[in-house]
Amino acid sequence: MIDLAIFGAGRIGHVHALNAAAHSRVRVKYIVDPLPGARDALAAQTGAEVVDADRAFADSAVAGVVIASSTDTHADFLLRAAQAGKAVFCEKPVSLDFQTVQQVAAAVEAAGTPCLMGFQRRYDPDFRMVRDRIAGGEAGRLEHVVMHTRDPSPPPRAYVERSGGMFIDQAIHDFDMARYLLGEEIATVYAVGRCLIDPEIGAAGDIDTAMITLTSVSGRLVQMVNCRRAPFGYDQRLEAICANEVLYVENRPRHGVTFADAQGFHHAPPLNYFMERFAAAYRDEMAAFVDLIETGTQPLAGMRDGLEAQRLAEAATASMRTGQAVRMEVAA
Amino acid sequence: MIDLAIFGAGRIGHVHALNAAAHSRVRVKYIVDPLPGARDALAAQTGAEVVDADRAFADSAVAGVVIASSTDTHADFLLRAAQAGKAVFCEKPVSLDFQTVQQVAAAVEAAGTPCLMGFQRRYDPDFRMVRDRIAGGEAGRLEHVVMHTRDPSPPPRAYVERSGGMFIDQAIHDFDMARYLLGEEIATVYAVGRCLIDPEIGAAGDIDTAMITLTSVSGRLVQMVNCRRAPFGYDQRLEAICANEVLYVENRPRHGVTFADAQGFHHAPPLNYFMERFAAAYRDEMAAFVDLIETGTQPLAGMRDGLEAQRLAEAATASMRTGQAVRMEVAA
Amino acid sequence: MIDLAIFGAGRIGHVHALNAAAHSRVRVKYIVDPLPGARDALAAQTGAEVVDADRAFADSAVAGVVIASSTDTHADFLLRAAQAGKAVFCEKPVSLDFQTVQQVAAAVEAAGTPCLMGFQRRYDPDFRMVRDRIAGGEAGRLEHVVMHTRDPSPPPRAYVERSGGMFIDQAIHDFDMARYLLGEEIATVYAVGRCLIDPEIGAAGDIDTAMITLTSVSGRLVQMVNCRRAPFGYDQRLEAICANEVLYVENRPRHGVTFADAQGFHHAPPLNYFMERFAAAYRDEMAAFVDLIETGTQPLAGMRDGLEAQRLAEAATASMRTGQAVRMEVAA
Amino acid sequence: MIDLAIFGAGRIGHVHALNAAAHSRVRVKYIVDPLPGARDALAAQTGAEVVDADRAFADSAVAGVVIASSTDTHADFLLRAAQAGKAVFCEKPVSLDFQTVQQVAAAVEAAGTPCLMGFQRRYDPDFRMVRDRIAGGEAGRLEHVVMHTRDPSPPPRAYVERSGGMFIDQAIHDFDMARYLLGEEIATVYAVGRCLIDPEIGAAGDIDTAMITLTSVSGRLVQMVNCRRAPFGYDQRLEAICANEVLYVENRPRHGVTFADAQGFHHAPPLNYFMERFAAAYRDEMAAFVDLIETGTQPLAGMRDGLEAQRLAEAATASMRTGQAVRMEVAA
Repeated sequence: MIDLAIFGAGRIGHVHALNAAAHSRVRVKYIVDPLPGARDALAAQTGAEVVDADRAFADSAVAGVVIASSTDTHADFLLRAAQAGKAVFCEKPVSLDFQTVQQVAAAVEAAGTPCLMGFQRRYDPDFRMVRDRIAGGEAGRLEHVVMHTRDPSPPPRAYVERSGGMFIDQAIHDFDMARYLLGEEIATVYAVGRCLIDPEIGAAGDIDTAMITLTSVSGRLVQMVNCRRAPFGYDQRLEAICANEVLYVENRPRHGVTFADAQGFHHAPPLNYFMERFAAAYRDEMAAFVDLIETGTQPLAGMRDGLEAQRLAEAATASMRTGQAVRMEVAA
Repeated sequence: MIDLAIFGAGRIGHVHALNAAAHSRVRVKYIVDPLPGARDALAAQTGAEVVDADRAFADSAVAGVVIASSTDTHADFLLRAAQAGKAVFCEKPVSLDFQTVQQVAAAVEAAGTPCLMGFQRRYDPDFRMVRDRIAGGEAGRLEHVVMHTRDPSPPPRAYVERSGGMFIDQAIHDFDMARYLLGEEIATVYAVGRCLIDPEIGAAGDIDTAMITLTSVSGRLVQMVNCRRAPFGYDQRLEAICANEVLYVENRPRHGVTFADAQGFHHAPPLNYFMERFAAAYRDEMAAFVDLIETGTQPLAGMRDGLEAQRLAEAATASMRTGQAVRMEVAA
Repeated sequence: MIDLAIFGAGRIGHVHALNAAAHSRVRVKYIVDPLPGARDALAAQTGAEVVDADRAFADSAVAGVVIASSTDTHADFLLRAAQAGKAVFCEKPVSLDFQTVQQVAAAVEAAGTPCLMGFQRRYDPDFRMVRDRIAGGEAGRLEHVVMHTRDPSPPPRAYVERSGGMFIDQAIHDFDMARYLLGEEIATVYAVGRCLIDPEIGAAGDIDTAMITLTSVSGRLVQMVNCRRAPFGYDQRLEAICANEVLYVENRPRHGVTFADAQGFHHAPPLNYFMERFAAAYRDEMAAFVDLIETGTQPLAGMRDGLEAQRLAEAATASMRTGQAVRMEVAA
Repeated sequence: MIDLAIFGAGRIGHVHALNAAAHSRVRVKYIVDPLPGARDALAAQTGAEVVDADRAFADSAVAGVVIASSTDTHADFLLRAAQAGKAVFCEKPVSLDFQTVQQVAAAVEAAGTPCLMGFQRRYDPDFRMVRDRIAGGEAGRLEHVVMHTRDPSPPPRAYVERSGGMFIDQAIHDFDMARYLLGEEIATVYAVGRCLIDPEIGAAGDIDTAMITLTSVSGRLVQMVNCRRAPFGYDQRLEAICANEVLYVENRPRHGVTFADAQGFHHAPPLNYFMERFAAAYRDEMAAFVDLIETGTQPLAGMRDGLEAQRLAEAATASMRTGQAVRMEVAA
């Protein structure tokens, strides 16, 4: 059995704690969260003990920590986990400050800390099928990609204000997916963004609708739409146009009943939001973290992937502000 | 150029006359119909002359006649066409009286009259694709068939009263399709029918909903649903379950726009009714009639097919009345 | 906490034991099965003790028993549970011998035993949505129903020989669904069946393809297709044609990726077989059993439903043998 | 009856000539084309006379001309039509040289020549339904648009060399659709383009894959993908995300048969290429030209629309070359 400590008992911490508890080779030993309500319920549900961060890091029996606490704590917890020699499963982003991300990434890499970054979409069976079919050569060369990410409805203003902006908060998963599918780095980023839906988001200095174009180092093309609302719910799709075939990741419907009347045929809206849509992905991601600890199997996304996705989000922000495309400096 | 005479300027006569006129090797020479309105407009539109039946049959330049007049005239026109040595394209049924159908079929066959029976569904590209894929062996052996035929809304009572009943008026096309796909005769017929939708149909002594089960001579199975209404429009589907694959003929949507809102995804209702749905089939059917005249190429459906489909409709009526399955006498 | 005993550690017993163990208010106290392998693994997985039937029935702490053992043991276990005053969750059928079913049903009803019959399809969210929309009046009056049930591939001959035949083994769920949706009893049953796919099934005296027509007491119509194979996998669909709308239960796809190439658009085959397709239904069914024990809430299917569905399966068998429709004796 | 002269007997001239000939109030009086083969066949088919351009312009009975000749003749024919007082139906583009387009547009407008520009997609029933639902207010405010245009396969190099480049040759229809749906002008254009598919296109100095982002004057967003190949055929889709609903124009399938086997469900590829896909649009477009002549009803696209779409294509070309977004000068 592997002992894990879960930092953060909020929405995503809850998912990870339950997946860890349901894993046959894991014990959730500790829940760490300053707020008592959800924390204590989650501890009861998983049979874990509520402790503070010091205690969790100090316990040498703890093999890994899941960092699902508020974003401003990620960097510190990552560094402490690296010092304590614990494997880390960290939700994105490492920090809203990109320089901090770079410093933490350097430190974590220097320490040789096993690290899984929470880009759960890489673990989704549908996105993986697309990736595997491209990587395996059946699909032919990937030429261009179109991605759609739309939330069901705008988040509250308080959330927006702490989010780091739509590119870091939402589009970062699409930047990551672009790198994952292309298997190479991005050369240029162009982004436009507007507040078209919710004036509260604009008042918070953020946007709710964005369009982003990427070119890869080898010259392949990616288009992304990001939006804080779709009239029908959560919209998460991808089209990968390859030489031999096109691969589509479609939305998954909420149910399997169709209604037909004089207006036509009515199909279910999609599964609502990422918790439902990516339930299987979160389970597989936790299993990958266990594999990382037990066998050193590299996860699908690591610290470096978090850094690079965020670098693209930073570039998109700069592009939007200047109205011009940004050329990435590609490491030699 | 082939000269044709069109008998009947009603709804279906109109379709056939226009398709004939649009055929590059056909001239619509005569329109025959006792009622002036639609007849004269159709004659003007096709450049045809309005004449009576005698005149049309007497003109030796007329190579073929299209019998799309009222059902009670079909038998007489068929016999006169046979006598006059003209090819015949005849709408079903030959007569509401089955004995008459048998007599006319015998006479027409004895005369060697080239004859195309108006089972246009055999000419529909989708149904043909299914048939061809079965006949060609790709699909594997056809094991069972499920068919759905539902009209958009019940016909007026006056129509029902002259229709010969739902089995002869509507289900006859499905009986024909069963024989066409199976490529063999039917051994047993079981039918239940009820008036569940429109009391006017019941008052006319007919049914509006029926379920029919057929077994073929070699033991394969067919199920049919026939109905005078579908809430969404015209419903015309088929599932052919074969050893290697299932072939579905789906409804064709009225347009290609999908709407999505909080209730889900809304797709167009199907093309409304057989005139639209089978527009291509009617064109191909007319072309086949031209081929029959020009080259003797056998049409997909002939006089014998009309007889056998109607024999099944008669058996279904008997089964519904007695509540028991009817065993067909299969010719040696 | 409710203590349950699970009888049978086979495929379906495994499902029920895990669902019971995962229920927050249930403890799986005992696993009862004469064969050690799967039984012991299941006991270990659920934290249950392996005991014999006597011990399980004798333990007054056991509030309910789940009978998922081999069919020939169902009747005896049901009667013993009734005597011991335990609630019962029983897999269908109660017995292959219909007289036994009637006797057991009478005894269980006389004893007032709370009983849930394992027609899990009633608990499937999609089938329930259809039922609720009909029962709630939104859909308008249900007029006719078409059901498709096809297994992915024929079962082994040994299974067929002990199954009681396809009507009792497979179609019984469709008979039950017909009664559930119609909300009334069936008046006539007509069935044809053939061995068209697997000669081994024929050699075992059974059929692999059947078509069944039902009429209800009030005159509504039902058609069912039952088959031991579909070329693409498990096929479980329903069309409920109502006055205002048609409700379709569609197959659920195995994944959400579409492939497009020169041959067209390729969508995933359905979830393979009932264990996957009805995973949610089995969970909800277990929750309903807990509710039955805790609060007396009537389950969606009880002993009487098992009896009536099997009565229809018996009638279908008789109809197939005689070639004629069977009229049900409807209780006053 | 209206007399028309058709300039150009190539692929698109053929479509327009046949649609004109099939229109009940039109006579195709002249076919003008220097090459005898297709020209003479088309003249025979439509009952037209073959003449030279002088003769067609000189005939005062000719009310309108359809300019479907090679691009380098458009400007001259347009000016001569304006001088001769004939209504014009002109295929895009007016000229590959944008200055020429501006001059011709000014002259044609000054002359008051009734002019329909050949953006047939505006006449497609599906695209019109989307436009009408937005314009009518049902859909709510249009917020952003995503468009896909992919040809079935790359054109020959000789075609590419005379095409003016992919933005003018292909994307011009998407630029036009953006303006049509938004109902306002474009403020910024950003485009990337690569030759990823066919090296012959690269050798001709053109691209085969492009991604374009537009912002409108009021700040709404448009994304377009243009490509010279889709593995499955012609890909022509649109997503219009509005406040109340999303409207999708889907591809139209080539047939209505679905095949199902162990690999899943196989649906037809789309109608192949724009001639088939937009057959109805071309008919309606010709009818609109007749209306323009008969009643002065403004067509959905006029000379000014051709100019503005091409201005965007020019801007896209400039953006691709500089790697930076282009800000449009918007007329006061």
